Amino acid sequence: MTVISHQRVRMGDCDTAGIGYFPRLLALVDNAVEDWLVRTVGIDRANMLLGHGLGLPTVDLKVEFTAPCRLGEILDVEIAPIRLGTTSIELAVSVCVAGAERFTGKLVQVLMILVTGVAHPWPTDWRRSIVAQIAPSNHEDCVQ
Amino acid sequence: MTVISHQRVRMGDCDTAGIGYFPRLLALVDNAVEDWLVRTVGIDRANMLLGHGLGLPTVDLKVEFTAPCRLGEILDVEIAPIRLGTTSIELAVSVCVAGAERFTGKLVQVLMILVTGVAHPWPTDWRRSIVAQIAPSNHEDCVQ
Amino acid sequence: MTVISHQRVRMGDCDTAGIGYFPRLLALVDNAVEDWLVRTVGIDRANMLLGHGLGLPTVDLKVEFTAPCRLGEILDVEIAPIRLGTTSIELAVSVCVAGAERFTGKLVQVLMILVTGVAHPWPTDWRRSIVAQIAPSNHEDCVQ
Amino acid sequence: MTVISHQRVRMGDCDTAGIGYFPRLLALVDNAVEDWLVRTVGIDRANMLLGHGLGLPTVDLKVEFTAPCRLGEILDVEIAPIRLGTTSIELAVSVCVAGAERFTGKLVQVLMILVTGVAHPWPTDWRRSIVAQIAPSNHEDCVQ
Repeated sequence: MTVISHQRVRMGDCDTAGIGYFPRLLALVDNAVEDWLVRTVGIDRANMLLGHGLGLPTVDLKVEFTAPCRLGEILDVEIAPIRLGTTSIELAVSVCVAGAERFTGKLVQVLMILVTGVAHPWPTDWRRSIVAQIAPSNHEDCVQ
Repeated sequence: MTVISHQRVRMGDCDTAGIGYFPRLLALVDNAVEDWLVRTVGIDRANMLLGHGLGLPTVDLKVEFTAPCRLGEILDVEIAPIRLGTTSIELAVSVCVAGAERFTGKLVQVLMILVTGVAHPWPTDWRRSIVAQIAPSNHEDCVQ
Repeated sequence: MTVISHQRVRMGDCDTAGIGYFPRLLALVDNAVEDWLVRTVGIDRANMLLGHGLGLPTVDLKVEFTAPCRLGEILDVEIAPIRLGTTSIELAVSVCVAGAERFTGKLVQVLMILVTGVAHPWPTDWRRSIVAQIAPSNHEDCVQ
Repeated sequence: MTVISHQRVRMGDCDTAGIGYFPRLLALVDNAVEDWLVRTVGIDRANMLLGHGLGLPTVDLKVEFTAPCRLGEILDVEIAPIRLGTTSIELAVSVCVAGAERFTGKLVQVLMILVTGVAHPWPTDWRRSIVAQIAPSNHEDCVQ
């Protein structure tokens, strides 16, 4: 199972070359990860950071850009958990516009205590929700 | 007396129209305010936020754009304090490229305690340093 | 009549002080102006820039911040045209969260030919759509 | 041989968790790639885009974050070309603060004609300058 977040490519997301600027496109992916967290675990980032004192920084990132993203396009950013460690998670990212792939990637994030920076095991209920989403039929192709 | 910070207009600061995107240009101004604070008061933002628990949010902003900023240009961002209140400060901003004006503005900022959001009087030594910089000869024209 | 665009305050829109970073908040306002243009004039920015060769840069900006915006909040960004010149437009901006004001502002933009940078009169049908939206009952208060 | 560009972590580069926000850190890397291009090939991006009509989009990206970047730190972003194809280039990125590694990565970029989006072979003199920089002794460790 996956979560799809729709992210519009805005004026400030494009560069002088007239196409999506890759650091801004990755900020849109991060927005989608935020949406995935809410829909999967039922917790938003403000609550995670300020209520629980936990952060989920990205420690590893791989992205392959297939085709340029353009101003005004609505990106379907699909987030799918593919591996859950004691304190980490690996997410597959697939970005399409109207079914045509634009870029794909993988992110590894680690749950950590904000004040100490020490990795923190996933709370049991969060873990249960995420594991339920990792299924053999999980694929990264674009869906419409 | 004023402080001039040099800020290059980068790829990610420009929009699809090929010119400086105004929210990004204001981030460059904010970088210059950061530099002004270090050079005038001798404190950097990390120290102000984390060491002193103080923030300096912008509460009022006026900007007039005269000419477009372009990719690769180095902005001379001139910051001059023009009024110091008990807890607030008004800064004049003047942005030039090679002596030609691009935009000017005024920012009002308020010193406040981060955890409570309550305004905080300027520490005596910070106040002294800033007042020394507010002079009758203070002008906002571009200088080279 | 006004157009309200909903803009979520994301991780990358907040600063180290934990509140909305003003240049990023202004990018959210710019997103809302983009949405206003589509809903009012029926033209999106990609079409305006690439199809018509026209840009609508901001030449004057005034913003007053009343209360901080926080991570995860959904901003109701209300855009209302208040004055239409031959080539320019003045827009009133009002930003609320659940009916509580966060900041307000005014933007002046000028329609211009991208390749020459010369101001361009509003096309008749665009003008008609915008004028229809400027009404005596037009107010900038927050509505829910 | 490598080129090191110094990039300060600014207020707007940090997130609510108080550390460098990864999409913004990658924008700082992109700034460094811009500086590398000027120093190695002698061409700036504005000239490449507008004068030559060429773009250099990133098509592949791998990043490993070792330690968080913090507000006010000056990143030494080291860029080293490691492979040059007919139309592509692979760059090794190594980011340190005072000799301590923060993150490393690899970027693949492709030179392309902006209006058509078609890959374009490296001009002979650009190629010569880049090849001269690819040496067996080229390593990615942090240097001070």
